[in-house]
Amino acid sequence: MLTDKVRNAVKKLKPYVPGKSKEEIARSYGVDPKHIIKLGSNENPWGASPKIKDEIIKELDKLHQYPEPINPKLMEELSKFLNVGEENIIVGGDGADEVIDVIFKTFVDRGDEVVIPIPTFTQYRVSASIYDAKIVWARYDKENEFKLDVDSVLNNISNRTKVVFLCSPNNPTGNIIDNKDIEKIIKETDALVVVDHAYIEYSQRKYDWTEKAPKFDNVIVLRTFSKVFGLAGMRVGYGVANEEIINYLMRVKPIFSLTRLSQVCAITALRDRDFFEKCVKEGIKSREMLYNGLKKFKDIKVYPSEANYLLVELKTMKSREFCEELLKRGVIVRDCSSFDGLGDNYVRISIGTFEEIKRFLNILKEIIS
Amino acid sequence: MLTDKVRNAVKKLKPYVPGKSKEEIARSYGVDPKHIIKLGSNENPWGASPKIKDEIIKELDKLHQYPEPINPKLMEELSKFLNVGEENIIVGGDGADEVIDVIFKTFVDRGDEVVIPIPTFTQYRVSASIYDAKIVWARYDKENEFKLDVDSVLNNISNRTKVVFLCSPNNPTGNIIDNKDIEKIIKETDALVVVDHAYIEYSQRKYDWTEKAPKFDNVIVLRTFSKVFGLAGMRVGYGVANEEIINYLMRVKPIFSLTRLSQVCAITALRDRDFFEKCVKEGIKSREMLYNGLKKFKDIKVYPSEANYLLVELKTMKSREFCEELLKRGVIVRDCSSFDGLGDNYVRISIGTFEEIKRFLNILKEIIS
Repeated sequence: MLTDKVRNAVKKLKPYVPGKSKEEIARSYGVDPKHIIKLGSNENPWGASPKIKDEIIKELDKLHQYPEPINPKLMEELSKFLNVGEENIIVGGDGADEVIDVIFKTFVDRGDEVVIPIPTFTQYRVSASIYDAKIVWARYDKENEFKLDVDSVLNNISNRTKVVFLCSPNNPTGNIIDNKDIEKIIKETDALVVVDHAYIEYSQRKYDWTEKAPKFDNVIVLRTFSKVFGLAGMRVGYGVANEEIINYLMRVKPIFSLTRLSQVCAITALRDRDFFEKCVKEGIKSREMLYNGLKKFKDIKVYPSEANYLLVELKTMKSREFCEELLKRGVIVRDCSSFDGLGDNYVRISIGTFEEIKRFLNILKEIIS
Repeated sequence: MLTDKVRNAVKKLKPYVPGKSKEEIARSYGVDPKHIIKLGSNENPWGASPKIKDEIIKELDKLHQYPEPINPKLMEELSKFLNVGEENIIVGGDGADEVIDVIFKTFVDRGDEVVIPIPTFTQYRVSASIYDAKIVWARYDKENEFKLDVDSVLNNISNRTKVVFLCSPNNPTGNIIDNKDIEKIIKETDALVVVDHAYIEYSQRKYDWTEKAPKFDNVIVLRTFSKVFGLAGMRVGYGVANEEIINYLMRVKPIFSLTRLSQVCAITALRDRDFFEKCVKEGIKSREMLYNGLKKFKDIKVYPSEANYLLVELKTMKSREFCEELLKRGVIVRDCSSFDGLGDNYVRISIGTFEEIKRFLNILKEIIS
């Protein structure tokens, strides 16, 4: 029996049920896909740099050639953008998810411990389960606007702890982790501290650890092109750390995973700094518009956010029912009941264009007070 | 010390040294990149379907959206192309390399055994080392035109064997594994037998196991868009197996790893059957031209091949020196000394356009008799 050959860790995993696409939602709910408002995946509603088109066309006669494992132009542009050395950067071909996988491959043997404060980005738990790590939960404090409970992290670190995952701004809660708290954790452990900065562009510069990371010997910052750069569909993420860490990670990183066109997209996005700045600025404006609009509903509690989404607590409805009512009206938001450590009455709402936010807030009146 | 936290398996790995790109070769050897003949990576010299351009342009306004985890159009086209059910297919976002990684994630715990006959595709060994599997070597028989030594496989299978890797046509030797040999191995073990068909389109139809694979409970066929479909730069590969195997693999497969534009490329390539047929036909013609040309050199032994490359044994030169002399003249071929189980006098040469093959054969006269 082949089933006897499957790893026990895999037998315990739940089969994956993919989220629904715009097209599927349109079919199921009889809505025109063009009218669907997608506020569920923290994407950049203004899309990617318009300069990408010309650059992609130039690359099309090379699609039959393997991608360059390390694209020198991409490394140069990233190094300039981040103000760190090229030797401090590892670029992943499946967004930051690949870098997370590579971190597990490099550091985590079966039974090793990883510390994950929750609620947070689900991928840490998913990867830990696949690699059969022992997950030690810590917490973001619900009673204190989801501020990281630093002691819950420190008290759970042991000799077997290999990795600590800190998400800042945290997904789905939106809040930042204080610099002094991150520093305390880094200094009190020799485990690798992952500071996930997927949304850092939407927050204040002083919270950005990217430039500092290479100065420590146990920190890696994760970043991505999937958010403000508007390239979630092209799967480019990266990590920044000191050279020794990067060299270990490079030993196990898939060699060719970043496609030729993904490389072109990332390089062009980095070079179009005007579009980037515009998306940051309008993104923050959209977040404020959404925040102020949601504040007016008495049955909703909105949490402040430094990211491109807002966490919302529903005082009178379950999240499942709330999302279903929105889907019927062509709006996709994220039901947070699948996040470990959150209840069944939380929803995450991404920024949209100003037009989309206005339409969404009007639709919302039909559902909740 | 962070180094103490790195897995022992990773400490033993050699750091990865990426191959040189056309651009780098051009700089190092002072050759115009346009004149370089690339016969080193088994790519399709006629590129990808020309219909891809229009389809890619249509997709550009969606780059900011996450890819569909399972693209229904791609599944439908693949199912038609292969004559197997959609439930029998898993598509990877880093070519077949991702499917290999997913096979290890699903089946192989540290210390489990994998059987690898050599010389063969290096990725099996690389993945096995990362997952800390015990590699049990079997062999393709050098004295017998690299025919698979079936007993060397069967005698090395134990209770702890999780996976057996069979590459057919085998890379880099080019020969097919007989149907009866594959069947014997499948029936005599309950380990998963991986039949890697990356190059199957260039061989005879009767050797294709794709349609048969779902009928067994311990076989997966690997295939790719990187070869005859001319999409190595876009990283699309897939596996075909019975539904139970696919379902286990799907539990650990990275969800979003196939980019939006890779999906568009693969769908369009499958729909342009004329271009596909042309590339198969001309590819085989190019292989014959190359074979006949190489035959004329008395200091070269050429092995017959069912793939888009030829293995060559150099009777009077080391492969390193041979490749270096070709690089100086703007030709990239593959030095096989890094393949386990081959000596230092083997080279793999890929098909090219007819023009490229002619130029290559002329250049070759300057180097060897």
